[in-house]
Amino acid sequence: MEMNIQKIGFVGLGKMGYPIAKNILNAGFELRVYNRSPEKMSSLLSAGAIEAASPREAAEGSDAVITCLMDDQTELECTLGADGLLAGLTSGAIHIGTATISPNCAATLAELHKNNGSHYVAAPLFGRPDAAAAGKLLTYVAGDEDVIKACKNLFEAYSGSHIYMGDNPKIVNSIKLTMNFILVSLIELFSQAYTFAEKSGIEPEFTQELIMTVLHHPVLKEYTTRLRMQDFEPAAFELIAGHKDVELMLQASSDVRAPLIFASAIREKFLSALARGMAEKDWSAIYEISRLNAGLP
Amino acid sequence: MEMNIQKIGFVGLGKMGYPIAKNILNAGFELRVYNRSPEKMSSLLSAGAIEAASPREAAEGSDAVITCLMDDQTELECTLGADGLLAGLTSGAIHIGTATISPNCAATLAELHKNNGSHYVAAPLFGRPDAAAAGKLLTYVAGDEDVIKACKNLFEAYSGSHIYMGDNPKIVNSIKLTMNFILVSLIELFSQAYTFAEKSGIEPEFTQELIMTVLHHPVLKEYTTRLRMQDFEPAAFELIAGHKDVELMLQASSDVRAPLIFASAIREKFLSALARGMAEKDWSAIYEISRLNAGLP
Amino acid sequence: MEMNIQKIGFVGLGKMGYPIAKNILNAGFELRVYNRSPEKMSSLLSAGAIEAASPREAAEGSDAVITCLMDDQTELECTLGADGLLAGLTSGAIHIGTATISPNCAATLAELHKNNGSHYVAAPLFGRPDAAAAGKLLTYVAGDEDVIKACKNLFEAYSGSHIYMGDNPKIVNSIKLTMNFILVSLIELFSQAYTFAEKSGIEPEFTQELIMTVLHHPVLKEYTTRLRMQDFEPAAFELIAGHKDVELMLQASSDVRAPLIFASAIREKFLSALARGMAEKDWSAIYEISRLNAGLP
Amino acid sequence: MEMNIQKIGFVGLGKMGYPIAKNILNAGFELRVYNRSPEKMSSLLSAGAIEAASPREAAEGSDAVITCLMDDQTELECTLGADGLLAGLTSGAIHIGTATISPNCAATLAELHKNNGSHYVAAPLFGRPDAAAAGKLLTYVAGDEDVIKACKNLFEAYSGSHIYMGDNPKIVNSIKLTMNFILVSLIELFSQAYTFAEKSGIEPEFTQELIMTVLHHPVLKEYTTRLRMQDFEPAAFELIAGHKDVELMLQASSDVRAPLIFASAIREKFLSALARGMAEKDWSAIYEISRLNAGLP
Repeated sequence: MEMNIQKIGFVGLGKMGYPIAKNILNAGFELRVYNRSPEKMSSLLSAGAIEAASPREAAEGSDAVITCLMDDQTELECTLGADGLLAGLTSGAIHIGTATISPNCAATLAELHKNNGSHYVAAPLFGRPDAAAAGKLLTYVAGDEDVIKACKNLFEAYSGSHIYMGDNPKIVNSIKLTMNFILVSLIELFSQAYTFAEKSGIEPEFTQELIMTVLHHPVLKEYTTRLRMQDFEPAAFELIAGHKDVELMLQASSDVRAPLIFASAIREKFLSALARGMAEKDWSAIYEISRLNAGLP
Repeated sequence: MEMNIQKIGFVGLGKMGYPIAKNILNAGFELRVYNRSPEKMSSLLSAGAIEAASPREAAEGSDAVITCLMDDQTELECTLGADGLLAGLTSGAIHIGTATISPNCAATLAELHKNNGSHYVAAPLFGRPDAAAAGKLLTYVAGDEDVIKACKNLFEAYSGSHIYMGDNPKIVNSIKLTMNFILVSLIELFSQAYTFAEKSGIEPEFTQELIMTVLHHPVLKEYTTRLRMQDFEPAAFELIAGHKDVELMLQASSDVRAPLIFASAIREKFLSALARGMAEKDWSAIYEISRLNAGLP
Repeated sequence: MEMNIQKIGFVGLGKMGYPIAKNILNAGFELRVYNRSPEKMSSLLSAGAIEAASPREAAEGSDAVITCLMDDQTELECTLGADGLLAGLTSGAIHIGTATISPNCAATLAELHKNNGSHYVAAPLFGRPDAAAAGKLLTYVAGDEDVIKACKNLFEAYSGSHIYMGDNPKIVNSIKLTMNFILVSLIELFSQAYTFAEKSGIEPEFTQELIMTVLHHPVLKEYTTRLRMQDFEPAAFELIAGHKDVELMLQASSDVRAPLIFASAIREKFLSALARGMAEKDWSAIYEISRLNAGLP
Repeated sequence: MEMNIQKIGFVGLGKMGYPIAKNILNAGFELRVYNRSPEKMSSLLSAGAIEAASPREAAEGSDAVITCLMDDQTELECTLGADGLLAGLTSGAIHIGTATISPNCAATLAELHKNNGSHYVAAPLFGRPDAAAAGKLLTYVAGDEDVIKACKNLFEAYSGSHIYMGDNPKIVNSIKLTMNFILVSLIELFSQAYTFAEKSGIEPEFTQELIMTVLHHPVLKEYTTRLRMQDFEPAAFELIAGHKDVELMLQASSDVRAPLIFASAIREKFLSALARGMAEKDWSAIYEISRLNAGLP
């Protein structure tokens, strides 16, 4: 397959979309833009972009169209219907979806494009508006390998790096959700830690140091490896002792009147592990309860 | 106050206690040891330690007694009663408690010693048995500053570093619990992330990389600062968009049949924040819900 | 408005739909049926029903069409498109939706019908297949009052009773979800109670008696009234004492190794209430925490 | 054993203790009372009770002593020490403990009395102050059967009914905790239901009716029986359909911004059940997840 990806359609000039579109234009691609609120297009038009009146128009004549939208619903609405992308894309053209959408929606989009003779490339963005402006995003991409190779210059125009993850478009959206899950869980963890510490009389500056120390501690590499290998014996710290510590946290949280909802949830995991006879395994063996409750062996 | 801390009592030769006692003996201190199971004392006795038949005997004639026990109850039992530490300690002598105990229990011990004319130093250990053997523990200490200064050589004999945290013995136990809370929450977070990722078709090796990438990402320093400063405007990522992402995680967790209990708990925080009109703040403003629920302003 | 509701379309012959359709046919209405798996129609056709090849055909010529489907998606698919209900319904005709769908989906359907010149009546079913067969269902209905009055005989043909709840179709779906929420929460509560009791050495027969005793105890009427009136002073049982009891439950659950996830969640509510200075209010004042977290005054 | 229980000691004249002591005095027993705040004793003394200066004095010469205290700690403090009950009770005398204490504390008390030659009877109270005043409490009692028979007149003097539950004192405290767990879970359930309903536009009066209707619905007897028999096939309502409903509740709770923490917890149970292949069982089979997580077969 020999594709020359030069004419780009672009839909969605929000906080992420605008700087990306600009970088693409700056890199010398021909750019056709559509945005629901037209005023956001003006500076790009002044800089040489072509105005499109609908997603369909942005797709017409383009080698690839990038969508940078909000969610499943807006992605589907932009793709389907008389004014949608599918109606405009020529056979063999490409739709690159950058939004954080559900893995199932990504699969649906891939199927729609397959039936249409076009290609869907899942390419959710890792990074925030400032990284987008600086061209320092990270992108995991999934879809047809040749198609993705053909888009190399395009990806390089707006994403600092892009990594190919196979042809299943669900995977990269699952990766994105896993990453956001880790991130938001950390934020909530910080919230609980700061709150408990403050009510225990610890200065926030010290708590921040404590958090950063734990996050960068080499023991975390060790724990992630133990979990990956499901290697819980011999114990570095026994589950029965870990349970005692969790009960101490909860008792202290009662004493200072600061809810610790993660500790409560974790307590249940420890009890479940103890009920199954895992007292002498490493405390990280609470992972086995998560696995069992997900039907994993 | 001029104290020469040379004669040390030691109670509790478990996985942590044994290597610590050995390091103290090796550093040239005179060591009087007691352990409930006497056989664990034998190699220390061969190396020059003196056998004590009770915590009281370990305390008699000692400048300082270190306890390295399991929990609140064993700590109190070892301290009180006819054969307890208090019955043996001379006026002005010191009890250094290294166990992870409740802040309230630490306060009780400090009060008991005050009434007894002796000193309590709270000094919970940060590190595991291998760090103890290598003398690379970290110790946060609280209690009378002069007393702690007098113990400098002793701390250096068994702990790589020790940091003075003021005179309130509760604080260092609260710090220890905060740190363990962060650590165990991370283990549970890894458990959920691995489980969700595996059921989504992501290889564990990749998930581990993803976890380590997030943990070392500079954005975490930024988030811990935002929380510390309670600085949620302007948003880097809006709370309303964060809520959408959490709902996507939960939807995906339903689709792959993998419970994500932290995401469920976090969802409630987002809803509560949205119900209070915080949609346009940074998503890290869910911290405010933790604060409100702990009665903080 | 004078409507004679006699010709009925029916879509969805599942466990609930089949006995309802049969009761309607038995009551003398003219019945046009459609089901995705045609074999389920046969006995109704033998009994005089007319076969429809699509939802549209079931709607054509009908005064009212009843849908008895699975979820939002099937309800929308059955309504929209070339073969959907809307394409077949004549102006002024009625769509009665009996499925448990989201309140938002009900609002969407009402809007679609309004634009189409037809009427949507939300009428989720309360009861299970045996109640449907016996004509003893309960139906809360919402929509245009005159339209609903005109359907009186139809409702009586398949539902033991029906109660008019105003013209907002969302409300009755919210009621249905509230009711199911209460029911499923009770089932989970029973699960936890049986598990904790069994591990504490209590016979299941006795636990069942205990559960039924509490459920029928007059104090529950009192508590639901206190909550409704937000009347928490003077306390019948103080919040601080309730907190103590919840901690006892959790301690006992630790001792017998039986997770009590509701008690953990409730503990956080008590802590939050205590943190806000509510120690001396009645323990049912934990309701105020739910209200605050939902942005209610 | 022939015991004539006529001289009664009483410790703890709080909201529950005072009316109970009064009923015992009114029934003609000789009453020796002790309370930490002496002023609460005055009206009982005027009515013929004898003042005791300590728990020990209340016990001296008494056939049985009733304690009506706050928690584990006060119960143990009142029992032990130079001025405690044990120091005053003659051989063969009885301690009746009415507080809600931990099952483990009840076992400890029974052991202490056994070693002392006295008897411990666990007799936690079911009912509130108004029921105590009216002599309409319910008491589950555990301990030596002959001892309890000998106390028949005493129990009848202050408790409307008392039921013998065997000789293990832990059981009746576990029963009490189970019952309080059910009750407080119902209060929290009402809280969430009222909150969700109010934000969905449903009147509180209607919500109360809905709650009471569900609580008295015969289907609950059926569900408690299903759980007790672990009888989940055939399904009355399939687990996969139940899961759909729980997701609808959560979606609606998002839409109206009202956290539904029980629904979130229940969602995890449904996912876990689906992950284990239970989609077609009755939805009440989520009980099996609670059993598995408690190590039950």
